[in-house]
Amino acid sequence: MSATQTLADYVVNDDGSAIPAPIWQEAKRAILNYLGCAVSGSIEPALDVAIDTLAPFSGERMATVLGRRERFDPLHAALLNGIGSHVHEYDDTTPKNYIHPSVPVASVLFAHASAHPVSGRDFLHAFILGFEVESRIGDAVYPAHYEAGWHITSTAGVFGAAAATAKLFGLSTRQMVWAFGLAATQSAGIREMFGSMAKSFQPGRAAQNGYTAALLARADFTAGERALEGPRGFAAVTAAEYDLSVIPAGLGVDFSLSDNAYKPYAAGLVVHPAIDGCSQLHRRYRPDPDAIVAVRLRVAPLVLDLCNKRDLRRALQSKYSIYHAAAIGLVRGKGGLQEFTAEAVADPVLARIRELTTATADESVTEDQVGIEVELASGETLSLFVEQSLGNVHRPLSDEQLEEKFRDQAVLALPAAQVEALIEQCWQIDSLDDAGELARATVPGATTPVATALAS
Amino acid sequence: MSATQTLADYVVNDDGSAIPAPIWQEAKRAILNYLGCAVSGSIEPALDVAIDTLAPFSGERMATVLGRRERFDPLHAALLNGIGSHVHEYDDTTPKNYIHPSVPVASVLFAHASAHPVSGRDFLHAFILGFEVESRIGDAVYPAHYEAGWHITSTAGVFGAAAATAKLFGLSTRQMVWAFGLAATQSAGIREMFGSMAKSFQPGRAAQNGYTAALLARADFTAGERALEGPRGFAAVTAAEYDLSVIPAGLGVDFSLSDNAYKPYAAGLVVHPAIDGCSQLHRRYRPDPDAIVAVRLRVAPLVLDLCNKRDLRRALQSKYSIYHAAAIGLVRGKGGLQEFTAEAVADPVLARIRELTTATADESVTEDQVGIEVELASGETLSLFVEQSLGNVHRPLSDEQLEEKFRDQAVLALPAAQVEALIEQCWQIDSLDDAGELARATVPGATTPVATALAS
Repeated sequence: MSATQTLADYVVNDDGSAIPAPIWQEAKRAILNYLGCAVSGSIEPALDVAIDTLAPFSGERMATVLGRRERFDPLHAALLNGIGSHVHEYDDTTPKNYIHPSVPVASVLFAHASAHPVSGRDFLHAFILGFEVESRIGDAVYPAHYEAGWHITSTAGVFGAAAATAKLFGLSTRQMVWAFGLAATQSAGIREMFGSMAKSFQPGRAAQNGYTAALLARADFTAGERALEGPRGFAAVTAAEYDLSVIPAGLGVDFSLSDNAYKPYAAGLVVHPAIDGCSQLHRRYRPDPDAIVAVRLRVAPLVLDLCNKRDLRRALQSKYSIYHAAAIGLVRGKGGLQEFTAEAVADPVLARIRELTTATADESVTEDQVGIEVELASGETLSLFVEQSLGNVHRPLSDEQLEEKFRDQAVLALPAAQVEALIEQCWQIDSLDDAGELARATVPGATTPVATALAS
Repeated sequence: MSATQTLADYVVNDDGSAIPAPIWQEAKRAILNYLGCAVSGSIEPALDVAIDTLAPFSGERMATVLGRRERFDPLHAALLNGIGSHVHEYDDTTPKNYIHPSVPVASVLFAHASAHPVSGRDFLHAFILGFEVESRIGDAVYPAHYEAGWHITSTAGVFGAAAATAKLFGLSTRQMVWAFGLAATQSAGIREMFGSMAKSFQPGRAAQNGYTAALLARADFTAGERALEGPRGFAAVTAAEYDLSVIPAGLGVDFSLSDNAYKPYAAGLVVHPAIDGCSQLHRRYRPDPDAIVAVRLRVAPLVLDLCNKRDLRRALQSKYSIYHAAAIGLVRGKGGLQEFTAEAVADPVLARIRELTTATADESVTEDQVGIEVELASGETLSLFVEQSLGNVHRPLSDEQLEEKFRDQAVLALPAAQVEALIEQCWQIDSLDDAGELARATVPGATTPVATALAS
């Protein structure tokens, strides 16, 4: 059976009973992480501009845009959710294929569910399947596809968004094949746009395009039936090398959600080990910042290639400074969004630590590692070697750490009590009769049953 | 200056005064040909399905869908115009790059102009610029891009649609660069979808996506500024070989509209010479079909590779039958939409001619040529050699032939009087205060000032 047909059959016929409990749990963790990103991204200018520009083009305003009071039709909400949840680039990653997998799939599911009631269980099931579809398609074309310059999160994401929506629509296998064809037809997004608003537009468009694919396929709008494997299909056209055998291999048994990683820090990945190690030293010893006289780091050579910047002029640069990474870890013990603002860059305590930090490239140190020595005025030296950075798939964030990340993000847009209620409700998504409640609970000022219960 | 910047500068600053009169005239011919396609395609099932499916998602219903009574927001109208005008695959072609150039550009312009008054002169100017942009971008990546499997009409068309819309919006150069970035971000469409409804969806989506790009760029939604030439930009990502030097070469002096060709027959291109030659014999000699005893064709070898089908089971097959081509030419003297219907396939007179026609591959005959011998019962032989098929850029359709094609298409959807009024109005587009009138004049039952004048 062809790759397209195999995936279509699987999505249409899977009833969820063979999906193991840890995968359902990982899906909830991915949703929690996604929602934190969507809520904190909801106040960004890129989303403001998109909302203002597209408002006149919205159909019936049935759907919630996560974290916003404006309402849109579900197609537009899918796009806008995607922009908001990706704009901080703080969402999840499957390191095996460099996809940020939750944004295209969860963005379309929340858009749809906020307009058309869907049980929490069906929502999670569709999420797991959409995640799996985009991951397997991404695996098949990675790395050639990514190296060519495709933004794989959107190019593979559109298939995941189509699959998730199609599952909720209850498409036939034939229609699901067409939905994949219509997804392939719209698969787009190039890495040249990184560093601009167009970057977060791409996975948003993937969510919206996947929704369009499922809508049209449901109405028997036909498409070519070899979307993935055809000689002019997605794989052949977009990847110099590909391997479609990974699509059926272990399908329904091995789940890509097991490989999902959550960024603990709102910074470039290569400085994560330094933030992690310095935060550990902060928690263990609580050193007085004024007593620190030198910080010496041994880092992977790539770190100095990419992040050797001490003199920071713009807030964005702080996300790519190994010196700032050490400073925030030692002084604040964390690396959330608020550690990379103009205020953080201007903080004299952090600036002083950046100045006295040195970093040496060491071939024996991997990109997941760092060696740290902190010399104190007392003559004492605090040292630590990080073997595997926090957030790595082998050292995942705990549920509590995910909640902490969520709080750090969501308080930018929502009152603390609403944030706590949202965390609570997110863990309970599988028991919700209407997963749309969770979308509505992200709107500033929303009072949900859970929020009311917590407040009383 | 980079290719992206060069094109942006040109589109923003051109005031139309350097565009020669024959190019303005060719633009009108392209628009006439486009509108005939859009009107005849307006009754196709693909468009019905798209309209029914997307209706709930339309914003303010300000825009006309060509040939239809339903109204949509301009973004949706751009998509729907694109589906309708490409669904018969009877639209124009620039043979140098295999783009069907008018669909993405005219679809978005009519959608916009039907909602927001635009002078006919500005409309035509934006059309010429959009046509030029997509053609030059297509030239830069053709043939590697097309051979890889991209549907170049949509992948290059999105840039043309963005440029045309942006010109009407009056974007700054910087915004135009962003619009190209946002177009590149959405550039999509693969040839694997040929033969399904998804094919006509692609140039429609290009029109709509180009509109979105211009809308967002106008609101300062940023994008990467090296959409075409960047190392992860459109050319590098989608073409194994490309030549961006063709983008500035002769810009503003040489116009791609000079290379535009209009299909005279609603059939595969390789059977066009046979229809042409047999139609010429029909006009010259009016042979009684019953008196024809043999038809012998000498054709390019490719013709037999692609169109060697005599026993036709579906109407679509008749478009790719060299035998049917000879029969309709000799018997009807034309090859319009109605020569490729189930009724035409079942016509016993045509079936008899198909049976007694033979075709021989001849290496000395080009794909634009055919040798024809028609043997009559009287013993007389009618013969003709077509050197260059009608519709070829070297033997373009006359204005009268374009009108005849238009009538043949438009009468499927509109009353004859309205068709004549529409032709009249189309030739006058450059003197219209509001080009949107032309869009509204395609709606069944519309009475326009011109129609009223003609009727009185």
